[in-house]
Amino acid sequence: LTTSDPGLKTSPLAPSGGFPDLPVVLGVSFSAVAAGVKYTGRTDVMLASVAPGSAVAGVFTKSTTRAAPVLDCQDKLAALHAKGASKHGFAILVNSGNANAFTGAVGATSVEAISNAVAGALKIPVSHVFTGSTGVIGEPLPHGKITDAIAELKSRLAAGGVADAAQAIMTTDTFAKGAGTSFNIDENIVNIAGIAKGSGMIAPDMATMLVFIFTDAAVDQAVLQSMVTRLNRKTFNCITVDSDTSTSDSLIVVATAQSGAKITNANSKSGRIFARELEKVMLNLAHQVVRDGEGASKFLEIEVTGAKSKADAHKIGKAIANSPLVKTAVAGEDPNWGRVVMAIGKSGARADRDKVSIWFGDILVAARGWVSPDYREDDGAAYMKNQDLKIKVDLAIGDGTAKIWTCDLTKDYVAINADYRS
Amino acid sequence: LTTSDPGLKTSPLAPSGGFPDLPVVLGVSFSAVAAGVKYTGRTDVMLASVAPGSAVAGVFTKSTTRAAPVLDCQDKLAALHAKGASKHGFAILVNSGNANAFTGAVGATSVEAISNAVAGALKIPVSHVFTGSTGVIGEPLPHGKITDAIAELKSRLAAGGVADAAQAIMTTDTFAKGAGTSFNIDENIVNIAGIAKGSGMIAPDMATMLVFIFTDAAVDQAVLQSMVTRLNRKTFNCITVDSDTSTSDSLIVVATAQSGAKITNANSKSGRIFARELEKVMLNLAHQVVRDGEGASKFLEIEVTGAKSKADAHKIGKAIANSPLVKTAVAGEDPNWGRVVMAIGKSGARADRDKVSIWFGDILVAARGWVSPDYREDDGAAYMKNQDLKIKVDLAIGDGTAKIWTCDLTKDYVAINADYRS
Repeated sequence: LTTSDPGLKTSPLAPSGGFPDLPVVLGVSFSAVAAGVKYTGRTDVMLASVAPGSAVAGVFTKSTTRAAPVLDCQDKLAALHAKGASKHGFAILVNSGNANAFTGAVGATSVEAISNAVAGALKIPVSHVFTGSTGVIGEPLPHGKITDAIAELKSRLAAGGVADAAQAIMTTDTFAKGAGTSFNIDENIVNIAGIAKGSGMIAPDMATMLVFIFTDAAVDQAVLQSMVTRLNRKTFNCITVDSDTSTSDSLIVVATAQSGAKITNANSKSGRIFARELEKVMLNLAHQVVRDGEGASKFLEIEVTGAKSKADAHKIGKAIANSPLVKTAVAGEDPNWGRVVMAIGKSGARADRDKVSIWFGDILVAARGWVSPDYREDDGAAYMKNQDLKIKVDLAIGDGTAKIWTCDLTKDYVAINADYRS
Repeated sequence: LTTSDPGLKTSPLAPSGGFPDLPVVLGVSFSAVAAGVKYTGRTDVMLASVAPGSAVAGVFTKSTTRAAPVLDCQDKLAALHAKGASKHGFAILVNSGNANAFTGAVGATSVEAISNAVAGALKIPVSHVFTGSTGVIGEPLPHGKITDAIAELKSRLAAGGVADAAQAIMTTDTFAKGAGTSFNIDENIVNIAGIAKGSGMIAPDMATMLVFIFTDAAVDQAVLQSMVTRLNRKTFNCITVDSDTSTSDSLIVVATAQSGAKITNANSKSGRIFARELEKVMLNLAHQVVRDGEGASKFLEIEVTGAKSKADAHKIGKAIANSPLVKTAVAGEDPNWGRVVMAIGKSGARADRDKVSIWFGDILVAARGWVSPDYREDDGAAYMKNQDLKIKVDLAIGDGTAKIWTCDLTKDYVAINADYRS
């Protein structure tokens, strides 16, 4: 499903209270317009304008069939990082409704046309314009509709426009996703605000669809990039909705330096405080993507401990999270730990069957290779009725750990992806 | 779902005409009884008795949490192969209803008790008794019910009992699976007859759940094992229903030598004829397992050509076949080639986006990285209404090829695995 459908009901797992009240990040302004790229009656293009002196970091899908805007962002980011700090401002323009993916040479033409128009309007180099597109694959992006809207986008730019931006980038999302935090570093108040979109075709390597995070801390470019890469592995790379990886996944983090808090070393006290707060925002957004998983009725955390290595723990967590049999058991509130055993076995990671233990919540279900003598099926069945669930697996052969987050596989997932035509 | 449910309707993809008329394989007899392991009102244990002088080959699941009977079969087969030809007869005993998997030390005790009882009744060494179990995971196998039935199983052994054997090994299968062939090698008539069970938790590495194939050709033990290993890679390892790999997958092939046709070299004329016929039977059984895929309404062949290597072609085919978004599009008769592009991209195999072409049946949908100028969506939509479908992908960067077979993902798959309690 790649079109916005007003018939889609808000996910039952959506955070209560609606879109959060995000802090204003100094040096960033946002706007959104209804350009009619594909949808009608809603905004579908957003612009973020970032003040000169900012640092930018990014992580992108590893898909070999990635979309034109992703390739362009990767090229521009590599060139910027090679040059060091820039004195110019940046811009991020994102449309929904069309992914500009698998569109051959005209895909790059569209990215260029949009980038040029934004650069001209904001008086920044075209190399400082990042674009993102999600929606239908294989149709040329009608970029004229976007370039025609840039004057209006510029005129509407406002520091408080982040919620509108989050709305404009939605496709099959049933709720707009935002997360933020404010904290002190050396007497300075630092703000972080991020938005995300994504609900299907979510499975990392590189889990998100589109995520944009802004902070007014002053973070050294190289420090920001390595921090984002590292934190991505613990957040967006640890979620999966349906094991399918998008051609458009992009995460861009911008630090405007306007708060005065300086981070030049990830291991300094300020560096550690900042990384901890950034991770919170990233994890919050990653969880929101899972909570908007197509057809999802349960949110599932899988914790793996005692694996031979960190990589093995991740493999086992992902094998459990992506198993259709585990996911349908969760949907059916069935404490079917045999399917967890199966998924551990197929993961490709090292395991000793007779050392494996499994918990559903706090309930020890299987101990050292067999059903626990104290386990009562009724307890497992009662636990599975919760909306938020936790499965813990201990391999008892090493100290590798991982946490993976996913949702269940329901008939609604099939209905959304089979019954509707995209 | 691991229990037999009389409410399950026969798969719409089942071969017409019911269980095939299989040739009698000289030197093998079969029987089946209702031992009440878990099910009532149906047979659930089968015995195959194989004449002295036979060769045996096997391939088993790579799961690290594999079941007790699988571990036992692997040990026995390795010991037999180390010793060379045996003068004793063999036996294969299989129960349905309980997988004897993740049952700790008592799992091995059950296998030993059954093996000893069969060995005593048939007067063969216990090292010559292979067992298989499928059904629920994590419950001790009530092996007494099986050992109590062995006298009756022995008394009922009959050369024509293969259809009864195929019935007895079913769990969630909606039809019994058999395939066979008769052909000449050097004036001798050679017969091959095989049975299989499996419909969910089907995804190789090692795709089948349980498959037993018998022939009266005289095939050298080492030649038979290497031939079965090679053919398995082109047949059972190329099917997937739901990407989940069983803890019990086993393929055992027995050659009784009673037809007089001798195969001592896989590359001889007789070796090539025999391999071709064996491959036909294996592929036929593999397709039947897919055709009984839980909830399946479409049978899908994915052909990959022009990949950088054979392994890359296999990876791409599997990524397409296992993608929930591709499988739900097929269920919805949606010619959604964008999802095929996505699956190619996430496969991990080498691909050049701008060289990829995609066909649905004979319809060229995408050519060299973009939608084909001649493609009409109506043609694609009309094609997708077929029950048997073919997706072809050409990478145009090498000569690696692969064929993968799968079925669609329907609401019935979710219903079978979520709504029923196993």
